[in-house]
Amino acid sequence: QAFLLIPKDSDFTIKNIPFGVASKPNGNPFPATIIGDSVINLAKLEELGYFNGPLFSTLGSKVFDSGNLNKFVSLSRPYWKEVRSQIQSLFQCGSQLENNQEALAQIITPVQDIQNHLPITIGEYTDFYSSKNHAFNMGSIIRGPDNAMQPNWYYLPVGYHGRRSSIVIDGTDIRRPWGQVKAPTAEKPSFTKCKRLDYELEIGAVIGGAPNNLGEPIKVNQAEDRVFGFVILNDWSARDVQVWEYVPLGPFGAKNFASTISPWIVSIEALEPFRIQLPEQDPEPFIYLKEKNHTSFDIRLEVLIGTEKSPELEHFTTSNFKYMYWSVNQQIAHHSITGCNIQPGDLFGSGTISGTTKDGRGCLMEYTWNGKEPLVLKSGEQRLFLEDGDVLEMRGYAGEGENRVGFGRCKGKILPALDEAYFQS
Amino acid sequence: QAFLLIPKDSDFTIKNIPFGVASKPNGNPFPATIIGDSVINLAKLEELGYFNGPLFSTLGSKVFDSGNLNKFVSLSRPYWKEVRSQIQSLFQCGSQLENNQEALAQIITPVQDIQNHLPITIGEYTDFYSSKNHAFNMGSIIRGPDNAMQPNWYYLPVGYHGRRSSIVIDGTDIRRPWGQVKAPTAEKPSFTKCKRLDYELEIGAVIGGAPNNLGEPIKVNQAEDRVFGFVILNDWSARDVQVWEYVPLGPFGAKNFASTISPWIVSIEALEPFRIQLPEQDPEPFIYLKEKNHTSFDIRLEVLIGTEKSPELEHFTTSNFKYMYWSVNQQIAHHSITGCNIQPGDLFGSGTISGTTKDGRGCLMEYTWNGKEPLVLKSGEQRLFLEDGDVLEMRGYAGEGENRVGFGRCKGKILPALDEAYFQS
Ligand SMILES: [Ca+2]
Ligand SMILES: [Ca+2]
Ligand SMILES: [Mg+2]
Ligand SMILES: [Mg+2]
Ligand code: NI
Repeated sequence: QAFLLIPKDSDFTIKNIPFGVASKPNGNPFPATIIGDSVINLAKLEELGYFNGPLFSTLGSKVFDSGNLNKFVSLSRPYWKEVRSQIQSLFQCGSQLENNQEALAQIITPVQDIQNHLPITIGEYTDFYSSKNHAFNMGSIIRGPDNAMQPNWYYLPVGYHGRRSSIVIDGTDIRRPWGQVKAPTAEKPSFTKCKRLDYELEIGAVIGGAPNNLGEPIKVNQAEDRVFGFVILNDWSARDVQVWEYVPLGPFGAKNFASTISPWIVSIEALEPFRIQLPEQDPEPFIYLKEKNHTSFDIRLEVLIGTEKSPELEHFTTSNFKYMYWSVNQQIAHHSITGCNIQPGDLFGSGTISGTTKDGRGCLMEYTWNGKEPLVLKSGEQRLFLEDGDVLEMRGYAGEGENRVGFGRCKGKILPALDEAYFQS
Repeated sequence: QAFLLIPKDSDFTIKNIPFGVASKPNGNPFPATIIGDSVINLAKLEELGYFNGPLFSTLGSKVFDSGNLNKFVSLSRPYWKEVRSQIQSLFQCGSQLENNQEALAQIITPVQDIQNHLPITIGEYTDFYSSKNHAFNMGSIIRGPDNAMQPNWYYLPVGYHGRRSSIVIDGTDIRRPWGQVKAPTAEKPSFTKCKRLDYELEIGAVIGGAPNNLGEPIKVNQAEDRVFGFVILNDWSARDVQVWEYVPLGPFGAKNFASTISPWIVSIEALEPFRIQLPEQDPEPFIYLKEKNHTSFDIRLEVLIGTEKSPELEHFTTSNFKYMYWSVNQQIAHHSITGCNIQPGDLFGSGTISGTTKDGRGCLMEYTWNGKEPLVLKSGEQRLFLEDGDVLEMRGYAGEGENRVGFGRCKGKILPALDEAYFQS
């Protein structure tokens, strides 16, 4: 029981203790956690000597004294656990801190007074394609249901290196891109504003821990040591650009214009009660992908949309992190199998996560079956792809009530594309 | 005329002044340049007040006081030019510095006493595919000469996001990777040591200058403001891994295990005398790719190989940076066209650069026509792909004698793959 007020249905119960970076108006960003609606300054807690556990006591220098979580993330699970349980104790009813009003005033800021920032300086970003429902739907759209799955898909977690510079935090507006497109019926490509702007519902794994040496793959059964925690990830996608550019080297401008993450990194420790077994894989994975325990987490994922005409957010998609074929541990093992060194601060996207039903499809291309079956909103408005002024929000949480462990939101609004004149000057 | 000794055929005449990072044994890395065989400590020059030009004088803080060139690279061309011409004046015969033995002793170290390091902390790495000869040869091998070129190739500079964590400096050993492969005739893939290990001869463009805002593409005719300079790049490739993994999201583990760059970044200023016009493009590029001046540089590129049996390096391939279809400026404009923010410290690979003849082919897959026509060495040894113990070296230079502007070398030795037991523990 926390002594801080935790509103009903808060994502941020004392069972959560996610990690982020926040700032007050005109203030410097600081590492933080959140309980209920109270943002807790971890730099202050550290400065005041509250992180005095056996591991942190032996560290020669401060961990939370900069505007990102990279130093913390570069430690290891025992350190992460120690900080988490110390925070839980500190904010428990009856703790010493509860009656130390002076300390509390320095440490706590109401959430409405802070702004979030990217929690880490991201090293590199890789996006996978690991939900079977999604891969099957996309393949069916492109090649028909009989050839939906590419032959390599069941053997390895397919992925591509993405762009980290354009990863932005929840709430950042997204400008509709320009790009080259070519309709299947057109003779030639054209240069145009994107007409098939889409989102992708994903979970991002924040990589932590000491890097593996170049040339030394990470073993799949040790890979979870490298997972600091998770965020929600919206991999915005320009479908018309993608289909023209992606042969033979993969998606590029269709993906690199923006990806949005939710502000608070939820730890594996917080999600542990929601761990679920994944179905056995067939064919059996190669030795480097063979897990002793093939799992994911039961995290409910939702997508909501608001339009200029009907700004109230309307929930239209529900999916779940349990719909993964390849686990995060397998993604890590595969990413390093040829020897790639995986660094703390890297971000791995799960790939779009789709459920088994239509309202579980994790992007509009799937939901509208490539722009054929419109999403019909309560207002009567229809969407095949995103339009200017649309607001797209993703949410995710596990558990209920006092046990709820949530991610907050991952939201972005579509701005109109640049005017054509931009390219003529 | 420099007062430092410049050996015949040195890459590092006073016309060059490339930028790198060096260290003495047990010393900290420092920003440096090189003239002849003398490595010049730029941190010391700055500390001693030698960078006193109109632009540098107004900077409030030091530029060369860390172990990389990122601060310098983040400035802009006028600053880069000022430093370059100040260095050229300082080391000209008759300069004040020539007789200041005390200063010279602090500033200069013989090249044999230093070690090079990555010149910048690389932000992100993108690799293009912009040599028509290479694309045509690769396409012919895979799809036959009639379908060699993909339809998008003539419309946009095809590229993919690569991995920067595994970019290493000249001289770093490269471990043969393990990975999944599937021969065309095999029913199923297998997990094995790479049997088709290859290099790719490329030029890397080091991006500098202020980043563009997210959502605001860089105009092609302003793109060169963002090019700090060039290095030689070896994009090591596991061909058997690549062909199995790359559908539909592009190359991944086949490329991310290592890429090697040469240590010294050669500036546009140094290469200016070697600028050459590129042939007119057909079809005419879209407006965002249409350059007033479509150019590259006449840089001779060489590939040499040594084996365990015959370690003396043998030159077998000659290509040239002039064999580019898409220019670096077009690559930059295209990379940002959907809105991607390009950061100082990013590295853009040209893609394998192949000439028009067999001995101009920039990788073994091309040279041996997919492992069919062996490379025969003077010793009688044959190579289809790289073998353990092979040393592969790339060199590049423009001009001759006193006007030579060279890149030094980009070298790596193949180590045997990990033992199978690694994956069983
Ligand atoms: Ca994605
Ligand atoms: Ca390449
Ligand atoms: Mg994206
Ligand atoms: Mg490479
Ligand atoms: Ni002299």
